[in-house]
Amino acid sequence: MIGAEILVKTLIANGVGACFANPGTSELHALAAFDSMPGVRCVPTLFEGVATGAADGYARMTGTPAATLLHLGPGLANGLANLHNARRARVPLLNIVGDHATWHRSFDAPLTSDVEALAAPMSGWVRTVPDAASVARDTADAIRAALTPPGQVATLILPSNSSWDETPAVEPIVVEPPAPAAPDAGATRKAAEALRGGARVVLLLNGAATSAAGLTLAGRIAAKTGAKVFAHTGATRIERGAGRVAVERLPYPIDLAIAALAGAKHVVLIGATEPVAFFGYPGKPSRLTPDGCRIHDVAPPGADALAALRQLAEEVGAAGDAEPTQSLALPGLATGALNADSIGQSLAALLPEGAVVVDEALTSSTMAYTPCTGARPHDWLTITGGSIGIGMPLALGAAIACPDRKVVNLQADGSGMYTLQALWSQAREGAEVVTIVFANRRYGILQWELGNLGFKEMGENARNCTDIGRPDLNWVSLARGMGVEAGQATDADSFNRLLKAAFAHKGPFLIEAVI
Amino acid sequence: MIGAEILVKTLIANGVGACFANPGTSELHALAAFDSMPGVRCVPTLFEGVATGAADGYARMTGTPAATLLHLGPGLANGLANLHNARRARVPLLNIVGDHATWHRSFDAPLTSDVEALAAPMSGWVRTVPDAASVARDTADAIRAALTPPGQVATLILPSNSSWDETPAVEPIVVEPPAPAAPDAGATRKAAEALRGGARVVLLLNGAATSAAGLTLAGRIAAKTGAKVFAHTGATRIERGAGRVAVERLPYPIDLAIAALAGAKHVVLIGATEPVAFFGYPGKPSRLTPDGCRIHDVAPPGADALAALRQLAEEVGAAGDAEPTQSLALPGLATGALNADSIGQSLAALLPEGAVVVDEALTSSTMAYTPCTGARPHDWLTITGGSIGIGMPLALGAAIACPDRKVVNLQADGSGMYTLQALWSQAREGAEVVTIVFANRRYGILQWELGNLGFKEMGENARNCTDIGRPDLNWVSLARGMGVEAGQATDADSFNRLLKAAFAHKGPFLIEAVI
Repeated sequence: MIGAEILVKTLIANGVGACFANPGTSELHALAAFDSMPGVRCVPTLFEGVATGAADGYARMTGTPAATLLHLGPGLANGLANLHNARRARVPLLNIVGDHATWHRSFDAPLTSDVEALAAPMSGWVRTVPDAASVARDTADAIRAALTPPGQVATLILPSNSSWDETPAVEPIVVEPPAPAAPDAGATRKAAEALRGGARVVLLLNGAATSAAGLTLAGRIAAKTGAKVFAHTGATRIERGAGRVAVERLPYPIDLAIAALAGAKHVVLIGATEPVAFFGYPGKPSRLTPDGCRIHDVAPPGADALAALRQLAEEVGAAGDAEPTQSLALPGLATGALNADSIGQSLAALLPEGAVVVDEALTSSTMAYTPCTGARPHDWLTITGGSIGIGMPLALGAAIACPDRKVVNLQADGSGMYTLQALWSQAREGAEVVTIVFANRRYGILQWELGNLGFKEMGENARNCTDIGRPDLNWVSLARGMGVEAGQATDADSFNRLLKAAFAHKGPFLIEAVI
Repeated sequence: MIGAEILVKTLIANGVGACFANPGTSELHALAAFDSMPGVRCVPTLFEGVATGAADGYARMTGTPAATLLHLGPGLANGLANLHNARRARVPLLNIVGDHATWHRSFDAPLTSDVEALAAPMSGWVRTVPDAASVARDTADAIRAALTPPGQVATLILPSNSSWDETPAVEPIVVEPPAPAAPDAGATRKAAEALRGGARVVLLLNGAATSAAGLTLAGRIAAKTGAKVFAHTGATRIERGAGRVAVERLPYPIDLAIAALAGAKHVVLIGATEPVAFFGYPGKPSRLTPDGCRIHDVAPPGADALAALRQLAEEVGAAGDAEPTQSLALPGLATGALNADSIGQSLAALLPEGAVVVDEALTSSTMAYTPCTGARPHDWLTITGGSIGIGMPLALGAAIACPDRKVVNLQADGSGMYTLQALWSQAREGAEVVTIVFANRRYGILQWELGNLGFKEMGENARNCTDIGRPDLNWVSLARGMGVEAGQATDADSFNRLLKAAFAHKGPFLIEAVI
């Protein structure tokens, strides 16, 4: 048996169901090994950022790692931006990177680079497999690392001779996923005291705490104590809509975020990290909490957030209470001009039950998130690490993970251009993704930040580099160029028609919403 | 004066003429500073790999560094693959990366990552500017590092407070570019002895040695001594065509490369590194030279390759000889079926004088390189580091550097998809780039390597991941989606018509050549 076959055997034995692949010469034995035994769905991508973002989307929806298959240092480099998002999403992800044969590395061939050094900043775990005999152990260790709560990027570097060399066949190691840590008992007690004490308390949630079960518990606690609940600005996945407990996200703009937390005496972190400003700004703080606010780190990422919420609910006497459930509240279809608000309204009206919304709408995000609060039950996935170009890949991965659900990708146009190659993979795989491009022809968030930083007007370079018109991108043409059916909407009526058609369509569909 | 203004002032004082930019919030003060004083052309890109590849192309054509402007770790990560190629091209490149304010970094905000660690593998020099007062010195040091022969990637990391803080105005430091080292006198003497001795000698050239002046000297030496001359497989830039001395490239396929060097007793390296296999293959050597062949490292990259060639020419008594000049030899236009050969033939016939050919045709490259040997004089730029996705960005940069020349980008379809966003920048800038997409609907090089590695037939996954049809990419639609005029050719006649139209066209034009 060759090393590559042991790799694949180990993936299958551990239920790794998909591999988002961009292989090169060094990975051809691994690729062939996927053909020697069935069990892993190989999804070809045309750019590595698509593969890593898709593996993230797959993990968010299944809780299990998908694999990638990337080519040497440059291939890994192309995947790093979305690995950064996956790292911030704290999902399990098995990032497999081929490398030169170990005996070839010292010759510094053109494609040689320091793969371990490149992987380290975006990985929780990195190892190079020294030889074929080590593949069984190292692959299992990588899967275990990926599954270590809350989940992390494990990069397994596979030199081609570790892949193609013969080694005695072994039974694959089946990994026992490590259990999450218990919540911090002391912090939980103090948080419960604060909740009972009547001072203003904010619960900040992420990870399992923003699942339907987590939000149910948080809702009971809030109803009992008057605490305010926020999901982290870049929450990994929020289960929401009718029948669930609604949650606001902590706003992205620093002034709004500070205002949201103003007056808080206690912030209780459950699956979330301390709220900090997305960027440093001159004269503004990095910490978003007011001076003197106490932070209670009840369940850091990796600890059992649901157990923490259960315990808090018990301690405040809310465990048996009814939670404040969101009722179905569908708005009518929007009419008139097309803008982020009218898109959000019509989306809320038409969103199918069980939809997965992938939100890289950036400046337009809130206008969709808010009206969907009372939409049919759905999941909401966000850009966790701020690295743009996640939407289309994440939507691909979510669609592969959940083939019976519609995925809706709310996509800012500037960010969409980073990884538009994902559309081709969506077409190839018949992925059920409806992409809505918010075509405002600019990096809206940068123009907003220019104002935020005190710039009164833009010079020519600032205008040139924040405006992505001249020429306008034609997203219908781009989508069709990759085999994805598409249409352009310029008012609410045409958008409504296209959105209905898109939801009825089999396979991917893109709407260029000119706003 | 703020740090960002000192940065821009220093760039201008040192003749940095262009900045390929993909800024984010942390780089907005730098962007605004470009507006506060004219002198640097800011070219917006929609993906960082476009910016870094374009800076490479600019440097190859001017010998001077362009700047990039990238956003934090993920923005840098997206640019790394083409920085890898630039590193292998050994060009001067000033890679400017914004980072969080120094006082914001410890808060581990969503976009925080270890920027220095990410930059190191692809950079020859890395420094973080600690404060605004250090911008003048650090920028000058970065430019000096970039210009250190033969040229390297210098990454200057600019935290946003180093950019926006006030500091006393200073005169910008004007950098004296370091001179190249003298050739190795001992190695040169021994190489000359070998050349005079009658044994089989190969001259392997790169860097300045493949300029017209270098090839003239190499041609004289070869004519006198019978030595065989090769350009490095991934030569940075070759000046060629009628009136110059023709040079073959050492082939990419390992068996052909070994055959090309078979029987060589001496290999003389001038601006080039030792020839090694692109990949390690089971049972094949890493070194391409035969056993017992002596390597004479006369002018390592960074040494004066032209001086080395002049000295060798003197020592073999060829300094005053006439070189074997290539005469103009234009083939007729191809007819019949469209394939890499007919494209190469028609290209050779129509290539305008002074054209810059950017070659990322991969499996189709030789079929264009060979017939263009006798074409009108032109430059040939290759994919130096093997990291695919260089063609369109490199062409953009070459076009910005040489606005009065036509740039022809020979582009494999699979590789083209990596950085197709460059087409939009070509349209925005009115870049004179003619892109010829070799649309064979597959990763041809991988299918070739599968055979090379002994795989007799492809399984489903291998086929799925090496075939990029189903659906076919429509390059005409993709190009038009980014504002680039385009047409599809399916036979030699339609290709000839489109190529003539493309050369007559003002601004970028793309031909999808279905082969």
